[in-house]
Amino acid sequence: MNYPNGQQKVTTNHVVQKQDNRMFSNRGMSLEDDINATNEFYLETNQAVIHKKPTPVQIVNVHYPKRSAAVITEAYFKQASTTDYNGIYKGKYIDFEAKETKNKTSFPLANIHEHQINHMQKVIDQQGICFMLIRFTAHDETYLLDAKALLTFWNLKQDGGKKSIPYDMIRNQSQLIPFHYQKRVDYLAAVDKLYF
Amino acid sequence: MNYPNGQQKVTTNHVVQKQDNRMFSNRGMSLEDDINATNEFYLETNQAVIHKKPTPVQIVNVHYPKRSAAVITEAYFKQASTTDYNGIYKGKYIDFEAKETKNKTSFPLANIHEHQINHMQKVIDQQGICFMLIRFTAHDETYLLDAKALLTFWNLKQDGGKKSIPYDMIRNQSQLIPFHYQKRVDYLAAVDKLYF
Repeated sequence: MNYPNGQQKVTTNHVVQKQDNRMFSNRGMSLEDDINATNEFYLETNQAVIHKKPTPVQIVNVHYPKRSAAVITEAYFKQASTTDYNGIYKGKYIDFEAKETKNKTSFPLANIHEHQINHMQKVIDQQGICFMLIRFTAHDETYLLDAKALLTFWNLKQDGGKKSIPYDMIRNQSQLIPFHYQKRVDYLAAVDKLYF
Repeated sequence: MNYPNGQQKVTTNHVVQKQDNRMFSNRGMSLEDDINATNEFYLETNQAVIHKKPTPVQIVNVHYPKRSAAVITEAYFKQASTTDYNGIYKGKYIDFEAKETKNKTSFPLANIHEHQINHMQKVIDQQGICFMLIRFTAHDETYLLDAKALLTFWNLKQDGGKKSIPYDMIRNQSQLIPFHYQKRVDYLAAVDKLYF
């Protein structure tokens, strides 16, 4: 299914998850699928309670057939007003957004919306743990960039600076996320290093 | 619009919100609308960052007309796997569900799903602040019931006990939520008393 932002959406079901456990590389799985599988592992092993928020949809028409489930027959995608993931880890509030880029040399800031930046600022003000997971698909690498660093780049852009964050700068200022068999994007390992 | 659980859903838009600010009683507004307005006030005044999660929907078909927005033409309501609201307050993770009942003498536990109970248990295990807001529309009263107390009632029910929580017990074991002009369900006042 193609979503309006052009990303390919792979429906995660149990069969798909069983298959991807047999793979030894991230290649081919979307960042979202990897994060969802990782969150499920964190949940089952009582490490953290972190979920992806449902896709926000404006429902316009619903049909109620007799003797079967209600069908939404007209609805529209809404822009999310927050980040995609949040939850709790070791008593702390965790909040993050995740983005992939095919770009090899930089992460384009156009991938992020201003209301997401505003939300991140508010989470920081409330002393939450806030960051962005960035995957460079060409390098098969996923990084955790602290929201404060992201906000610095964003503000520089607003002041006429670069429209993207150079790959080398992300390598220097972010935590590389380790890949594990069951924790495909083991971002809590990076969270432990950075925030605890 | 009628949702499959039989609740009336009022679409919140700016005009509706302006109108409800002129009212002096909770009567007539849904608990969800009141909480959303309160959360917006908390957000604007930098007291907390708490949002309602979008309604989970399984999208089956999307139509992409030329030169206009994508239209979802077939989708179904999914059961939520967590509670409806979460966020951060004074550095603490907050997680809650909200339910209204027309029942005058008790709150029927059938209003809650087992996966929501499981989610609440997991949030408690991670040291999060977790509760349920219960509105008795007949009494025009809204209570904050701590999740641990709710779990006790739930477990008694599972062991063959009462299928509902008596109103008097909720009055004794819960915090009554004060009503304010701009904070229609000022639940953080109750959170302050109970958890800080």
